[in-house]
Amino acid sequence: MADTRIEKRRKRLVKALKPNGLEALLVTNFTNVTYLTGFTGDDSCLLVSRDAAVIISDSRYTTQIAEECPGLDVVIRTNRQPMFQVVGKVLAKAGVSRLGIEGDSMTVSVRSRLADQAKSLELVPTSNLVETLREVKDAGEVAELREAVVQAERGFAMLRASLTGDQSELQVAHDLEHSMRRFGAQGVSFPPIVAAGDRAALPHANPTDALIGRSSFLLVDWGATSTGGYRSDLTRVLVTGKILPKLEKIYKVVLKAQLQAIKAIGPGVRCRDVDSVARNVIERAGFGKNFGHGLGHGIGLDIHEGTRFSPVSDDVLKPGMVMTVEPGIYLPGWGGVRIEDDVLVTRDGCEVLTSVPKEFPEVVQRWS
Amino acid sequence: MADTRIEKRRKRLVKALKPNGLEALLVTNFTNVTYLTGFTGDDSCLLVSRDAAVIISDSRYTTQIAEECPGLDVVIRTNRQPMFQVVGKVLAKAGVSRLGIEGDSMTVSVRSRLADQAKSLELVPTSNLVETLREVKDAGEVAELREAVVQAERGFAMLRASLTGDQSELQVAHDLEHSMRRFGAQGVSFPPIVAAGDRAALPHANPTDALIGRSSFLLVDWGATSTGGYRSDLTRVLVTGKILPKLEKIYKVVLKAQLQAIKAIGPGVRCRDVDSVARNVIERAGFGKNFGHGLGHGIGLDIHEGTRFSPVSDDVLKPGMVMTVEPGIYLPGWGGVRIEDDVLVTRDGCEVLTSVPKEFPEVVQRWS
Repeated sequence: MADTRIEKRRKRLVKALKPNGLEALLVTNFTNVTYLTGFTGDDSCLLVSRDAAVIISDSRYTTQIAEECPGLDVVIRTNRQPMFQVVGKVLAKAGVSRLGIEGDSMTVSVRSRLADQAKSLELVPTSNLVETLREVKDAGEVAELREAVVQAERGFAMLRASLTGDQSELQVAHDLEHSMRRFGAQGVSFPPIVAAGDRAALPHANPTDALIGRSSFLLVDWGATSTGGYRSDLTRVLVTGKILPKLEKIYKVVLKAQLQAIKAIGPGVRCRDVDSVARNVIERAGFGKNFGHGLGHGIGLDIHEGTRFSPVSDDVLKPGMVMTVEPGIYLPGWGGVRIEDDVLVTRDGCEVLTSVPKEFPEVVQRWS
Repeated sequence: MADTRIEKRRKRLVKALKPNGLEALLVTNFTNVTYLTGFTGDDSCLLVSRDAAVIISDSRYTTQIAEECPGLDVVIRTNRQPMFQVVGKVLAKAGVSRLGIEGDSMTVSVRSRLADQAKSLELVPTSNLVETLREVKDAGEVAELREAVVQAERGFAMLRASLTGDQSELQVAHDLEHSMRRFGAQGVSFPPIVAAGDRAALPHANPTDALIGRSSFLLVDWGATSTGGYRSDLTRVLVTGKILPKLEKIYKVVLKAQLQAIKAIGPGVRCRDVDSVARNVIERAGFGKNFGHGLGHGIGLDIHEGTRFSPVSDDVLKPGMVMTVEPGIYLPGWGGVRIEDDVLVTRDGCEVLTSVPKEFPEVVQRWS
């Protein structure tokens, strides 16, 4: 049976085509294809027009498309037929003369080959048409994000239960990924950051051979990808040794900034205002220069998508958006603290989807 | 100290630009950037001209580029400067008026933004300029591939040592990835295929919850990615129960086809001829229709790259190419056998880089 939620997504897209004067859109961003069809494979594109939706794929995916997209029209190309050739034929058959293309994913080569296939066809580059629809999640997407959160949280509980000082950052990162898969995740939502002590001062540290025991605290930034491809994103700092007064002080500032920002979240609120709630707390504590990134970003099929919390964002929150809230304080040479949760904007405020303990005594590990 | 091997790669590229009438190439395919610089991150592009090479990146990568690409000119953009804007400035400074772009990786949007930045600049789409250079591996690349082979082989030895019938295909796949990382791999070179019994009839089966014990044989197609980003690719079929006479028969045909094809490999040999050596063995045994794919492909920074062994390939082998040799026989509803090794073309023949046992008695697991 066809999934009515997914049909609704395509209807919203068709509506968005009209003001752009387009009859049809060729969707070439694989993530957008997944969003509009439920198909979780890649190497496939989708033609959406007022009357029809056709997915163009190859024989590796025949069965999977039948299972994941019941009722959707499918054209399967052979190994010897290049994608753009088959797309040209589908377009000719559909009688499309003015076609929207996704300028942010179609390559210069594919555009030129497609133009060669269908000389009378006008190709109109578009930007973010589907991405804009993806900002507001429907009930099916929220359920997928909840699944990705549970997988991440169970993985982290295993990490806490097994952590010792003689593991390297890399080993901890690999074990975390392995655990999340045991709990049903497709995989990580991005390569986890596991950074001990001074390495936590880099917002995007790659895990290294450095041992956890080299420092008295550990930053972990991680997430899981659910069966349907949705991505969670969390950060916690654990105390893995003596409780440094400086760490405790900074930790409490970051936590206060995060909790106040979350309180400010609700429909109709400007993203820059949420950012400034957290930023003000950190500035008042004297660490303004040490919070160099935006407060958060949308999550969904991509780990960074749509709306942003930042000092320059003009975005306004809507019910159904799911955002990270992740203030941080970084002191080069010493280390850093970031606390990150995933928050769903609701009709009358927000719901925090993540529930890993973050109060100060709770993040202290039992340590030798 | 600058790596002279990598400088040589850039020199070969500059030579290849001349016949195309180009002063410079903007390399936007991240894998090609890695090949030409040694930098293993992403989100960066490289301008190569007769006199200069400049990498354009962002502040996350400042340290990594300094470590991985000593001596290379670097421009670091800020969060608020889009890539194409900074590239525009670098081009203006370098006085380039006719620029090659990589049509297979540059998107329609980036091209148009770049054109807006530098009105007098002529942008010339190119295809496969760097990819062609990548076909022949230098000594550093062969060393990386050997590393990726060892990581894959040690992971597979762990798989064999730990395999039981009550593991699912997915569990085995995840454990294999975890093991390869323990041996220093960055990760898998592609999501492993672990297919029990009839599921092995699909050349690209995704691992499922099906238990290994449901069948008396198991196909595993896997590889590791080395520190420097090079990818190995192997396939073995293990006997995990009663030895079926049909399996043994098919297995021996595939192995004979593979061994004879490997013997045929050497510099100057046409790829279609190597393919037909294996295909003839399989056809003579009556399974011609059941070998539906090409015999193999080049490996390197990508898991499929460059040269192909196929019935229609006009490619000719050169010393330094590294190719998979992977004949298979697939019987829908029953299962399949594929045997795959990685082979380096040498000056006087070839060297098989992989050494996992594949003779029939050796692939029989100790089983309850």
